[in-house]
Amino acid sequence: MYLGIDIGGGSIKATLLNQKLEVLQQESLVTNPNWTNEEFLFGVLEIIKKFPKEKMHGIGIGTPGPLDIETGIIYHSANLKNLKQVPLKSFLQKYYSIPIIINNDANCAALGEYYFGNGKGVNNLLVVALGTGLGAGWVYEGKLFNGYKGNGMELGHITIVYKGALCGCGQQGCAESYFSTKGLLGRYFEQTKIQLNSAQEFFDKVKAGDVHAKYVFQLGIEIFAECLRSIIHIINPEKIILVGGISNAYDLIELPLKEYLQKIVFPELWNYTRIEKGLNVAGSLGAASLLFQENLC
Amino acid sequence: MYLGIDIGGGSIKATLLNQKLEVLQQESLVTNPNWTNEEFLFGVLEIIKKFPKEKMHGIGIGTPGPLDIETGIIYHSANLKNLKQVPLKSFLQKYYSIPIIINNDANCAALGEYYFGNGKGVNNLLVVALGTGLGAGWVYEGKLFNGYKGNGMELGHITIVYKGALCGCGQQGCAESYFSTKGLLGRYFEQTKIQLNSAQEFFDKVKAGDVHAKYVFQLGIEIFAECLRSIIHIINPEKIILVGGISNAYDLIELPLKEYLQKIVFPELWNYTRIEKGLNVAGSLGAASLLFQENLC
Repeated sequence: MYLGIDIGGGSIKATLLNQKLEVLQQESLVTNPNWTNEEFLFGVLEIIKKFPKEKMHGIGIGTPGPLDIETGIIYHSANLKNLKQVPLKSFLQKYYSIPIIINNDANCAALGEYYFGNGKGVNNLLVVALGTGLGAGWVYEGKLFNGYKGNGMELGHITIVYKGALCGCGQQGCAESYFSTKGLLGRYFEQTKIQLNSAQEFFDKVKAGDVHAKYVFQLGIEIFAECLRSIIHIINPEKIILVGGISNAYDLIELPLKEYLQKIVFPELWNYTRIEKGLNVAGSLGAASLLFQENLC
Repeated sequence: MYLGIDIGGGSIKATLLNQKLEVLQQESLVTNPNWTNEEFLFGVLEIIKKFPKEKMHGIGIGTPGPLDIETGIIYHSANLKNLKQVPLKSFLQKYYSIPIIINNDANCAALGEYYFGNGKGVNNLLVVALGTGLGAGWVYEGKLFNGYKGNGMELGHITIVYKGALCGCGQQGCAESYFSTKGLLGRYFEQTKIQLNSAQEFFDKVKAGDVHAKYVFQLGIEIFAECLRSIIHIINPEKIILVGGISNAYDLIELPLKEYLQKIVFPELWNYTRIEKGLNVAGSLGAASLLFQENLC
């Protein structure tokens, strides 16, 4: 049995799967943004303890980075501000002497789509996570690309607009600063001095014909298309799957995105790469997939 | 014994290696830019015939693309304008029933640095070829990344300057349109209406303190740094090696490139990725490396 744990924005969710990949049990726990390292570690332990120990053959954990997948240390977290150098893996390993694998949430989302979603059996699969930020995970020939200590695929932080908009990372012109919740809301604020609260609110304005929202949306689509052009020209994915909150507006995004991409991607690659919306497989299933992938259980 | 063939700008060069990777024999042939498919095919055959057939266990061929590495067809060539859909592999296979592998020249350059140059034993190696254009090859965990039909890594055609300078590919703002011989000379022409004839001539002007050359050079360095930032954030190379004609000006390039990169790359990756000049291993050695790689001989 595989236990998958998703450390999300406001909660920790866990799912136990059997060998047929059927869901046996699910649990969740609300996190407190002021948690210390210790409170966080015991929070994760608490949720794991809700599952029968003898049934567990491995634990996969997905978390926002930055982290070190080799040591299983989370360096810090955007949502849990007090966390610093959290030794998650070594802490849990004291209680559970089964394989424990930790990876970043975008990588888990990619594996989730590969095993449970719209990416089944795709030899060269890129999953782009469009949420607060812009991340991605790459499954190539059945294997997750981890890169250096799991830092692979910071797709949001490739430069598209030289000397462009300021990004949360401190640099200018990153894809994320134009096409992510932060990016779209930030560019909209620049135009209007109005601070929207969610991507949903932004897309409602686009649908209602708000001129500024439409401008920011079209710019975002073009920058995101240039970002996909870059990654298509680099790794030639067979399929690109969009997941995350912003993918809920796929009906709005699909047509202008594909129209623009068709103009800018090399034709032989454009004819090869399919783009579609993902199933938005639960993060805990993606985290459990870390275990199948490594053939540890 | 391995035969490596490099189809270059004005000539075809071939090298025979023994199993210790020592050079046994070298031959070359000047090409004619007006060659038809047939003349080209018999030209390649002619050079291969100069080597003892019984000693050859495989032929590796590097050529500018676009090509299909599966069928061994070269679609067309920038230097030999009359070539079209050249069935190089199937033609040679009629005369030689040994393994014949064809790949693009940037990929061969990457393998050349991996086996013979400054990239020996590097687990995640990116080789950037800075010549007329900007290309790259990636050797990851000892294996060349081919991507779709060998089209992997069109690093010159990732977008860095949204709506920027017109590139030879027809799109705008590609890295290649700022930092390659074509790019540097093109941008210099925009500034001065003076058409330089070579990268050497351009770098001489930079050294002589020509204001326009210095501006175009600094812009080129910054755009190239942004391009490397993108690829570092995507595939996390352990080492990046620069080869090709422009790498001859590495003494001029190194300092400003690294200074700018340090400001824009995520610190953990900047501390990890080394950048250096390659040995500019002969293309025919890189082409022969296609054979070791695939373990066919």
